[in-house]
Amino acid sequence: MGDYCIGVDLGGTNLRIAAVDSDSKLLEKLTLGAEVSRGRDFVITEMCKAIESLRTKYQSSGALLGIGIGVPGFIDMVAGMVMDSPNLPDWKSYPVRDEIERRLSTKVILENDANSAAMGEKWLGAGRQFEHMAMYTLGTGVGGGLIFNGSLWHGMTGMAGELGHFNVYADGHPCGCGSRGCLEQYASATAVVRMAREAIARGESTELEKLSHDEGQFTSRSIYNLAVQGEPAAKKVFENVGRALGIGVGSMVNALNLPIYVIGGGVSSAWDAFAPAMFEEMKFRSSIYALTSPDRVGHEKGTIVTRAMLGSDAGLYGAARLPMLLGFSQTETGRQ
Amino acid sequence: MGDYCIGVDLGGTNLRIAAVDSDSKLLEKLTLGAEVSRGRDFVITEMCKAIESLRTKYQSSGALLGIGIGVPGFIDMVAGMVMDSPNLPDWKSYPVRDEIERRLSTKVILENDANSAAMGEKWLGAGRQFEHMAMYTLGTGVGGGLIFNGSLWHGMTGMAGELGHFNVYADGHPCGCGSRGCLEQYASATAVVRMAREAIARGESTELEKLSHDEGQFTSRSIYNLAVQGEPAAKKVFENVGRALGIGVGSMVNALNLPIYVIGGGVSSAWDAFAPAMFEEMKFRSSIYALTSPDRVGHEKGTIVTRAMLGSDAGLYGAARLPMLLGFSQTETGRQ
Repeated sequence: MGDYCIGVDLGGTNLRIAAVDSDSKLLEKLTLGAEVSRGRDFVITEMCKAIESLRTKYQSSGALLGIGIGVPGFIDMVAGMVMDSPNLPDWKSYPVRDEIERRLSTKVILENDANSAAMGEKWLGAGRQFEHMAMYTLGTGVGGGLIFNGSLWHGMTGMAGELGHFNVYADGHPCGCGSRGCLEQYASATAVVRMAREAIARGESTELEKLSHDEGQFTSRSIYNLAVQGEPAAKKVFENVGRALGIGVGSMVNALNLPIYVIGGGVSSAWDAFAPAMFEEMKFRSSIYALTSPDRVGHEKGTIVTRAMLGSDAGLYGAARLPMLLGFSQTETGRQ
Repeated sequence: MGDYCIGVDLGGTNLRIAAVDSDSKLLEKLTLGAEVSRGRDFVITEMCKAIESLRTKYQSSGALLGIGIGVPGFIDMVAGMVMDSPNLPDWKSYPVRDEIERRLSTKVILENDANSAAMGEKWLGAGRQFEHMAMYTLGTGVGGGLIFNGSLWHGMTGMAGELGHFNVYADGHPCGCGSRGCLEQYASATAVVRMAREAIARGESTELEKLSHDEGQFTSRSIYNLAVQGEPAAKKVFENVGRALGIGVGSMVNALNLPIYVIGGGVSSAWDAFAPAMFEEMKFRSSIYALTSPDRVGHEKGTIVTRAMLGSDAGLYGAARLPMLLGFSQTETGRQ
């Protein structure tokens, strides 16, 4: 091995840390409980201790080039701070990046977790043959990340890539962002469970109702399992996921005409249940997609919409990649 | 003056040609009838004659650096051909660019007309202080253009920037593209007239009905004039324009977080009638816009949504600009 970077993925449940060398070889992966409820300083101290232990272990093999940290929420890339994060309330307006740089004396890049996942899939996953890519992460919410010319697109204030808040149904379900009918309200794990409850309330499924009696088991995965067994209401829930994705991704194809759109996150494992409706809707919503779909022009020239490949490691690998990218554009203010 | 370029804007009614020098000084502007019905060869011959007359006139003052031609429709930037254009049916699959280069012995760039307009506004209009920009052209249809890092973004097959086909109402009015509820169905001049007819059919306005008796006078402009006079149904039509724009532009802000979004084309002259509803809707649809609106963070740091400045000359200036841009990226295939 040679020099290496460390990627950190701070999720709601786990704090995961990986050392990856520049040939993309995983040296070691650690998983700790995130314990964000114990506060910012506790989490940062645990993170720094774990990073120090990795650095000590690998110091004879190569240099630590830097650390990338993926966190949920809006990031101010210039200041290296979390601007807003529902999961990390006490991280707001605190100089996280500078504090960790000070403690560890190495370059630190703070990044949105969905952007990190996009970078991971671009580096080692479904997008590795492409310079431009959009990624959708279907988890508790729906995150997104855009890569143009090999770099993450941050936009003017670092907030770009909020693809989960594309409007798909103007008068649709209220969203936590304040709007209605955002993609997140139809394609997240939370939305799958809500849509299943709505089907139960309409009296459409005794199977779903039985499942819902065990609160802990009533998850997007168990609803998917019912769909796979052919239960009509559960199938319909995932068709709704596919339709909403088709509308959202279709508009993106019309706007950006990118070569690849990658769908990741936990809900993407229900691909076979939602993808047919998604592709059908995309052909309807986007004449560009209809003209350039792989079944029309071939996979080599077509617009690719595909599953992510790295699973839950995408964000971890992507975060580790960030310090390797020299000339990494922090923010595109775009003003002269 | 020094060296200069020639811009061509081929519209449904007029063929307009301008010689512009690299200091952005307009040397001369010609307007000819487009007469596209007389066929491709007729139009190209007229265009080449006019360009030759300008070149003869200015040959002592500087060199002709190249010609940019904006045409409606999908353009294959690599082949220099019109792939599909409802207005120019016999231009399809014909090597327009190479033919004009052969006849005039100078560099020719063929470009989509809405992209040319975006480049014009970026060079000399509302976007001149910005490196990244989106432009919406509200005309007979709704066109769009995206500029990243000072260059037009073409996407994989040159089709990017179809912002008129952003989905705003999933079950909305059928669109010529095959989908339903595209922005174009609510924010174009055609849509304004249709929505006014719908109001008449619902018996909502005797004023609009009177106006509609004179078919030639029943235009988006005359409906706007009624709205300005306070006629409720006409006002409502433009509020619908604003709401649809707010949904479409709001989703774009969430995706791209650009510093500026420029609204041009004929319908943009009804700005005061649709802009209040548009801004209200944008704050509702996009928490990024709500956080970065100029009334919150100031004009200097805010997300700007504004009227185009060059009127119908945007496309002409933009087309003339194209040959001046060295290293102009023709198409982003984005495959390695």
